[in-house]
Amino acid sequence: MKKKDDILTMFWSDGCLHLLDQRRLPLEAVYRKCCSSDEVIESIKDMTVRGAPAIGIAAAYGMAIAARETLDAGYNSENTRKYIKEIAEKLRFSRPTAVNLTWAVDCLIRLLEENSKATPDQIFTAFVAEAERIHSEDIENNYLIGKHGSTLIKKGSSLLTHCNAGALATGGYGTAVGVIRTAFDEGKVIKVYVDETRPLLQGARITAFEMLQLDIPAVLITDNSAGYLMSRKMIDAIIVGADRIAANGDTANKIGTYSLAVLANYHQIPFYVAAPLSTIDLNIPDGNHIVIEERSDDEVTKIGEYRITPEKMGILNPAFDVTPAELITAIITEKGVIRDPDLGKIKNLFKEEGTS
Amino acid sequence: MKKKDDILTMFWSDGCLHLLDQRRLPLEAVYRKCCSSDEVIESIKDMTVRGAPAIGIAAAYGMAIAARETLDAGYNSENTRKYIKEIAEKLRFSRPTAVNLTWAVDCLIRLLEENSKATPDQIFTAFVAEAERIHSEDIENNYLIGKHGSTLIKKGSSLLTHCNAGALATGGYGTAVGVIRTAFDEGKVIKVYVDETRPLLQGARITAFEMLQLDIPAVLITDNSAGYLMSRKMIDAIIVGADRIAANGDTANKIGTYSLAVLANYHQIPFYVAAPLSTIDLNIPDGNHIVIEERSDDEVTKIGEYRITPEKMGILNPAFDVTPAELITAIITEKGVIRDPDLGKIKNLFKEEGTS
Repeated sequence: MKKKDDILTMFWSDGCLHLLDQRRLPLEAVYRKCCSSDEVIESIKDMTVRGAPAIGIAAAYGMAIAARETLDAGYNSENTRKYIKEIAEKLRFSRPTAVNLTWAVDCLIRLLEENSKATPDQIFTAFVAEAERIHSEDIENNYLIGKHGSTLIKKGSSLLTHCNAGALATGGYGTAVGVIRTAFDEGKVIKVYVDETRPLLQGARITAFEMLQLDIPAVLITDNSAGYLMSRKMIDAIIVGADRIAANGDTANKIGTYSLAVLANYHQIPFYVAAPLSTIDLNIPDGNHIVIEERSDDEVTKIGEYRITPEKMGILNPAFDVTPAELITAIITEKGVIRDPDLGKIKNLFKEEGTS
Repeated sequence: MKKKDDILTMFWSDGCLHLLDQRRLPLEAVYRKCCSSDEVIESIKDMTVRGAPAIGIAAAYGMAIAARETLDAGYNSENTRKYIKEIAEKLRFSRPTAVNLTWAVDCLIRLLEENSKATPDQIFTAFVAEAERIHSEDIENNYLIGKHGSTLIKKGSSLLTHCNAGALATGGYGTAVGVIRTAFDEGKVIKVYVDETRPLLQGARITAFEMLQLDIPAVLITDNSAGYLMSRKMIDAIIVGADRIAANGDTANKIGTYSLAVLANYHQIPFYVAAPLSTIDLNIPDGNHIVIEERSDDEVTKIGEYRITPEKMGILNPAFDVTPAELITAIITEKGVIRDPDLGKIKNLFKEEGTS
């Protein structure tokens, strides 16, 4: 199933992973070719690829590259397994907040352990197939997220989104943007407000780019304007993605998401989180246990090469925040919508998942 | 009374107004020399000078320059008065939100009308003296705002401020920053968080610059981080300036202020507005009647010369928002603190003013 053509977040070709360099959007769309696992790790760290689902998929391909590296090095079966596990650990820690990263690496490690007698060559073949399966499954899941999420959107809605949870944050189609585009295709959306999303401006750069590509009427605002628009009744619903969802529904997402959720609560505007089940971390009981990544001062002090603050100024740059479940109207997954999310409802969804 | 030396927001010399060009801070501190009333109007429009009290003072000097222009042109008394009133109207509409602008122009017009027999030369002399009085009175008022406001700050506080309501937004010393520096000098403030304040980054550029000059420990954050810091109990009070306060206490201030007030309310953190009485507009009953300026798309789409969003993206750029009085813990003025501000309390303060 393929819907409107998106620019590809990544593709696999000739044993290498080609990642759209998202740091250079919207000025140019160029791919970074990663032929070593180190290059994949570097691309995750430096945010060539970003967005929790996309990071997970890139890591899966990174594991496939690691398997190819063992072939190139002529490792025996034992050393192959040892090397792959080393790379798996490096990939796992290349970004701290996106749980999809761990989830994807675990999928590959499980495959490795289930096929204890596979040769290095067989491992490589199986890993490429598994990475491609994870990639295409993510896109299919996003179609389902879009379909389920759209049922929540009323005709004539103006929506607000933060950061980018679109095709470029995922394998394709998008999570939050997936809901927006499905609802738009169903004639329900009249306007999308896009938070620019400081510091890295993923809204201004990437979501804006996607909205224009999709011909969805969209307006860019500063993050500071969101509350004002809500006070003027210009926003009917807010929809965002997620980097990690705890077992009770508490959600880590791009910094500023929590503020939007508090504002939505104050203005009685529904606040939706759209994410695949792979973003839910049942090992984490609640948001207090989610590690919040602090990123470089440079993200705040410089925009492009333009310095915006005096040299000696201290900076605090948390990349994510945690929105408690009680501020979330519903979490939208590929398995359906969880209204007023809590531990019981989330566990139930995984049970259905296990038996399906 | 002169406290710590601030860089001058503006000074009057040789019949011209010298305005610190705040658009170029913190990269360089250069003065723009305005020798015509048109140059003053242009400087207010293009934000060479910004901050409601500073705009008011600049307008007062602009009126003095208009008076000098009538001398240069050799106008008779009637034409002098006519010309000054024309310039007054232009100054009044050079920015829509800051009421201090109208207030200052009105002071000069009142002077003109009270001295109906003054010669053009006498008018000029009186106007320069009045502008200088408005300027120095603003600084004295800010010392008083600082003193009154500091009584609200508890020892060991970490404060958050938005935009710039410092020496450079005023005649000197600052309103919100005036409270912060008085409380700091009294040993009560351990840290100041500064919102960068998109789109024009007055926090990152100007408040950061002032904090470093004053040796106040300060940390710059993105506007998106404020809610997260509140959720982590890292902020004990929020203090901001104002561009216009309605008779009931509703306050227009830099875009994003309203979001902070909602967040403060949710986290039960005190939210203070610091402003001179000249910022209160008794002619406006409530915030619904305050005109919100929408500014150029370029402020959002470009940072320096660096373009951050695709060419065709739609933009909405409201420069201010309105915080309803019920979200304001107290308004701090030179005449004292108005807790839980409302129409009655604000009118009372003006009555005391009238009889003092």
